Amino acid sequence: MKRKVCVVITARPSYARIKTALAAIREHPELELQLVLAASALLERYGSVVDVIEKDGFRVDRRVHMILEGENLVTSAKSTGLGLVELATVFDDLKPDMVVTIADRFETLATAVCASYMNIPLVHIQGGEVTGSIDDKVRHAITKLSDLHLVASPSAAERLARMGEEPERTIVTGCPSVDIARACVEDGHEAPDAFAFGGVGAQFDLSNGFLVVMQHPVTTEYQAAYRQVRQTLEAIDRLDRPTLWFWPNVDAGSDGTSKCIRAYRELHALEHVHFFKNLPPEAFLRLLKKSLCIVGNSSVAIRECAYLGVPAVNIGTRQNGRDRGPNVIDVEHETKAIESAITTQCEHGPYTSSEIYGDGRAGRRIADALSAASLSIDKRLTI
Amino acid sequence: MKRKVCVVITARPSYARIKTALAAIREHPELELQLVLAASALLERYGSVVDVIEKDGFRVDRRVHMILEGENLVTSAKSTGLGLVELATVFDDLKPDMVVTIADRFETLATAVCASYMNIPLVHIQGGEVTGSIDDKVRHAITKLSDLHLVASPSAAERLARMGEEPERTIVTGCPSVDIARACVEDGHEAPDAFAFGGVGAQFDLSNGFLVVMQHPVTTEYQAAYRQVRQTLEAIDRLDRPTLWFWPNVDAGSDGTSKCIRAYRELHALEHVHFFKNLPPEAFLRLLKKSLCIVGNSSVAIRECAYLGVPAVNIGTRQNGRDRGPNVIDVEHETKAIESAITTQCEHGPYTSSEIYGDGRAGRRIADALSAASLSIDKRLTI
Amino acid sequence: MKRKVCVVITARPSYARIKTALAAIREHPELELQLVLAASALLERYGSVVDVIEKDGFRVDRRVHMILEGENLVTSAKSTGLGLVELATVFDDLKPDMVVTIADRFETLATAVCASYMNIPLVHIQGGEVTGSIDDKVRHAITKLSDLHLVASPSAAERLARMGEEPERTIVTGCPSVDIARACVEDGHEAPDAFAFGGVGAQFDLSNGFLVVMQHPVTTEYQAAYRQVRQTLEAIDRLDRPTLWFWPNVDAGSDGTSKCIRAYRELHALEHVHFFKNLPPEAFLRLLKKSLCIVGNSSVAIRECAYLGVPAVNIGTRQNGRDRGPNVIDVEHETKAIESAITTQCEHGPYTSSEIYGDGRAGRRIADALSAASLSIDKRLTI
Amino acid sequence: MKRKVCVVITARPSYARIKTALAAIREHPELELQLVLAASALLERYGSVVDVIEKDGFRVDRRVHMILEGENLVTSAKSTGLGLVELATVFDDLKPDMVVTIADRFETLATAVCASYMNIPLVHIQGGEVTGSIDDKVRHAITKLSDLHLVASPSAAERLARMGEEPERTIVTGCPSVDIARACVEDGHEAPDAFAFGGVGAQFDLSNGFLVVMQHPVTTEYQAAYRQVRQTLEAIDRLDRPTLWFWPNVDAGSDGTSKCIRAYRELHALEHVHFFKNLPPEAFLRLLKKSLCIVGNSSVAIRECAYLGVPAVNIGTRQNGRDRGPNVIDVEHETKAIESAITTQCEHGPYTSSEIYGDGRAGRRIADALSAASLSIDKRLTI
Repeated sequence: MKRKVCVVITARPSYARIKTALAAIREHPELELQLVLAASALLERYGSVVDVIEKDGFRVDRRVHMILEGENLVTSAKSTGLGLVELATVFDDLKPDMVVTIADRFETLATAVCASYMNIPLVHIQGGEVTGSIDDKVRHAITKLSDLHLVASPSAAERLARMGEEPERTIVTGCPSVDIARACVEDGHEAPDAFAFGGVGAQFDLSNGFLVVMQHPVTTEYQAAYRQVRQTLEAIDRLDRPTLWFWPNVDAGSDGTSKCIRAYRELHALEHVHFFKNLPPEAFLRLLKKSLCIVGNSSVAIRECAYLGVPAVNIGTRQNGRDRGPNVIDVEHETKAIESAITTQCEHGPYTSSEIYGDGRAGRRIADALSAASLSIDKRLTI
Repeated sequence: MKRKVCVVITARPSYARIKTALAAIREHPELELQLVLAASALLERYGSVVDVIEKDGFRVDRRVHMILEGENLVTSAKSTGLGLVELATVFDDLKPDMVVTIADRFETLATAVCASYMNIPLVHIQGGEVTGSIDDKVRHAITKLSDLHLVASPSAAERLARMGEEPERTIVTGCPSVDIARACVEDGHEAPDAFAFGGVGAQFDLSNGFLVVMQHPVTTEYQAAYRQVRQTLEAIDRLDRPTLWFWPNVDAGSDGTSKCIRAYRELHALEHVHFFKNLPPEAFLRLLKKSLCIVGNSSVAIRECAYLGVPAVNIGTRQNGRDRGPNVIDVEHETKAIESAITTQCEHGPYTSSEIYGDGRAGRRIADALSAASLSIDKRLTI
Repeated sequence: MKRKVCVVITARPSYARIKTALAAIREHPELELQLVLAASALLERYGSVVDVIEKDGFRVDRRVHMILEGENLVTSAKSTGLGLVELATVFDDLKPDMVVTIADRFETLATAVCASYMNIPLVHIQGGEVTGSIDDKVRHAITKLSDLHLVASPSAAERLARMGEEPERTIVTGCPSVDIARACVEDGHEAPDAFAFGGVGAQFDLSNGFLVVMQHPVTTEYQAAYRQVRQTLEAIDRLDRPTLWFWPNVDAGSDGTSKCIRAYRELHALEHVHFFKNLPPEAFLRLLKKSLCIVGNSSVAIRECAYLGVPAVNIGTRQNGRDRGPNVIDVEHETKAIESAITTQCEHGPYTSSEIYGDGRAGRRIADALSAASLSIDKRLTI
Repeated sequence: MKRKVCVVITARPSYARIKTALAAIREHPELELQLVLAASALLERYGSVVDVIEKDGFRVDRRVHMILEGENLVTSAKSTGLGLVELATVFDDLKPDMVVTIADRFETLATAVCASYMNIPLVHIQGGEVTGSIDDKVRHAITKLSDLHLVASPSAAERLARMGEEPERTIVTGCPSVDIARACVEDGHEAPDAFAFGGVGAQFDLSNGFLVVMQHPVTTEYQAAYRQVRQTLEAIDRLDRPTLWFWPNVDAGSDGTSKCIRAYRELHALEHVHFFKNLPPEAFLRLLKKSLCIVGNSSVAIRECAYLGVPAVNIGTRQNGRDRGPNVIDVEHETKAIESAITTQCEHGPYTSSEIYGDGRAGRRIADALSAASLSIDKRLTI
């Protein structure tokens, strides 16, 4: 009797954080994969990552629409509640032996509460990290509901132990996103033609290097989203280098971000910037590996780029507290500081690879851990 | 401008845990009380504690129906989701400066998630304790979402510090339930006539001593609820002493408990047992103070009865891990063990008062803490 | 390729109205039955009709918890909304070719709205009738959403035509409840021992005749539910005849009814009354056939009892406007009038059978109609 | 004691259908206006009509987020269910004496069900019309739940009577949208500068005449939305006349429409087309009055333009069955047919005014009717 492992993916960036584990679970002789796609993972304006996942050969068992339109703090709370209502039906239908939730987005708490209230062992990927915003509260609350922690780094494991988690419930697997990065480095394939992936805006020559931008709105600074992305837009505009800009996730405030980008585009030519909703992770990483610098506040800059050695300019507070490799320069939301840091990084060029977020073999380790783990839901505080 | 303090009460037992604080908030010159009654606090079959609260002179600002019928694990999860959907509307209407959630029942996580997702400072009453069931996961998850912890005991405060909570966010206030116990002892009033409070079953003479039973179903042992309460029913039946039995809360499994009690009553005379849905806290405590022994798995036996010195027979795992005064004997769900422990306690008689859950002045301390606290929602893990 | 017919049952009385059709659908070579149990059909305190249905050999495909506790007008509205949210998931999973909804209870509108919004042909059983309360609004609103009407009587069919429904979308099948009544008459089996079905209250000799009571709260007279059932209780108490009393459905106000019955039982002996939650339809009908008179406001008194010739005392407004056979005496909610009408009916004895609600072959006709019907959802008003 | 009239507006086009009535209710000595904004009326990507309404001086009492992202048939059903859950809270808070719902959009059924289940008299604006799609089912279902019908035309009133509505519950008021049209004609103001209202796309000279396009996706033809709007885009592209294009509502399929428009714009210059999200009704009507022709499937073309005499090209089935003045030419979704009809209408020029949808005094008549109407919710079918 195979263990049924139900993985809930709620957003585009979570897919990169789990993809190699999905493949390893599917191929593991003692595991059966149940895949639930929910929230912005289903939505076209966030890149319909569900389509990418199906194209990668995974069967989607359930689709859960749960995002209430409005993109403010009230709808974030309500959407999470709806997710809880909907996921209870899903788990009751699928009867998984364990549920896997990824990282710390607001809606992932619905997965965690639902599984633990239904007495299904809960597995958390990427617990034990610290970033310094509402994400921290979500992540640590999920930790307290979780029965098994599969973490990216030894420092995360130590933090969980200090928080009172039983040490035998924590396993350092590394982050699956680094697996993809490793594979992309090792297979020696060329970076794809970015413009073949659609998007909007000008097209231009990338052969002399280019920037990558990913900037998400920061939940607790809702009002400021418009102003913040404007600083980045101006810096990019001034630098006048070829730039691939990736659209933000669904979050309170993303309308502010989107609106600012749209408004800016109407008024400024931005002939060296192309905007994308989504790319397959491998394509994205190959482009990233070739890029001069990644700009914004994405965790990709901290995590995959540590391994890849890609220079990063990290803006604002979103990644505060997260362990950093040598490749990161931190700046405020301030046009000149952003511009100057990008210039510094472009001059520096690639960094040496760092393994602080894994050695590129996390997927298999995760599948093995899921297969071997105790299914006990009776957890005790060790402190 | 007074601080608006929104207190959400979701069940009968929570009222005793907050009542003196409600009064102190209402009378505090710098605080304005907003009172939300939700979940089983509104339901007649759990004693409509809302009516008691209004009779005590508190104005109820909002009523939130959120309990989905069915009383199983699926409906517990869905009810919590609905609570989250509904409370977002309430908080958006009332615009509180802080939200207070009490203890660790499943539906209180809805309050906690909602407030934290809406960037409203969250205050948790009774964090830092350990009991050993799903309640632990709920309680510690709420801790991680909370911005201020008002705890019952120094050992709870220490535990929060070890979990990484900033020490300045934790204040030892004692438990308000002990305030009521203290007042009941100090005012010298007589215990009321129990039978004046309705209920069903035989009536009998209480003047030679009587037992009190409160036994809740244990969420993670859903199937066993029927069998467990049956052991207690048989012990009480055999002991043949006057007994006041209080009905359980809404919880996955309470149908099992209710059904067993109803079925047992149809077949057995139980002429020395009277069943109640609810009593005003003071009336309950005065009766408790006069009782020979409290039996079951209620935290009242551990908490108020420590202060009151009432002998307690605690059955099963529900209170595992909670600090105990000298008044408690623990037993399994086993008729003979229960019967024997009750006999021992009746022979022992009253214990000396213990202050491990407070000195009876928690309400005022809580109001002062709410008035003085920082409203910062930017919390950092200290470990 | 068989047509997938999804039948949604939300309450105990609906099962009798569809049971023979379920069997006929299951056995039809061109139909596949999908069975969804929802709302009070799942709840123990309304008799868990789901268990009866499974015992009858039907497989339940989905269970939908949707009743919010509270039993007032607000929770009726919210429960219907939740049903709509949940049924959308069910229909999306099951992908039925048509959805069948039964009669006019408040929560059935959720089924109707959901199917029509999802472009699934909607079949309504028991449209075109008139009863004179909120049920009328619900029933006629469902008519307007429905694509096929399978009605109990020619007068119902005529009414639908006058309301502008295309005549080819209406088929007179008779009511399946009469099929069961017919079978119970024709198979010559004895009535079962009522007390073998549990329930609470006294047991007594039924061989010299007995009364049957079924009284539901009337939604738009919420406050009056307590007072109304009290009139019936007093009449039954005074008559002092053996009485089998069946518990009401979930509805706004049923708490008033339940509470009154419980309160009355605590104060009065009622040694000739036994209370039941539920009986299998056949057992119920065999008992009914043997009874002296049915009392209350159930449609069984109007419908099955027309065919069976059982004398009926119909109280209050709930059945206003429904076609009646000769077996019915109508009275107000008034103790003396109820008492006197019951006495008259007991003296009269059985009536001649009437076929105004069908000839007992509805189930097969319904299955044939579902198999043959056009699946067009483009309906036009003919008036 | 003034009657509290709660009006629920769920979308941009509904505002034009109620605006003059809102003003008349607000000023009526015996009425108090309660205004609830819900669904797409709150959403920026549908033009945030809530902002327009507040700018017009109306106070918004409650905002109800209810639209689940996804824009397919499943989310339409779920969104309606959520609306029902949320509106029950709103009506319970506001305690209106009557609730007003407008027209026939899918989510308006939530308003209707909620009010009728809560025993609040329901008033329907624009019942009795016929258009031939799912809107018909919604509209007629609302009719059956409604206690008062305020209709646009005598033919609508006659249809309601034939459907069995009590004649004294129907009043012909005309459509408030015509009030605005009348005022715009009578006050003699100039049409505003369209480009001052934002939007995206080219700007151009309007002084030699221009086209107006409003094309909504048709719910039951979800898959075809993309293809349909493409036909219109090509016709407009070929005609090469100045064109003001207004964005569609939230509906299953609007993503198809939006996506097609975005994709077309990326590939074709469309230098004579400007795209708008929203305009104040008066500004829109003044522009419309000056336009050569309105193109698409909006009811504005049928209704206001009858009064204004603006030539209209109505595409596809969305307005099937609606009474037409002489100003309309109907065509299929076919580029050449659309192009040719537009040319014909431009050559014809303005039509004579028709009063089939009212004489321009509906708002005041509606307020008077609300003030004078019986509040009875006991409706009887007259047929």
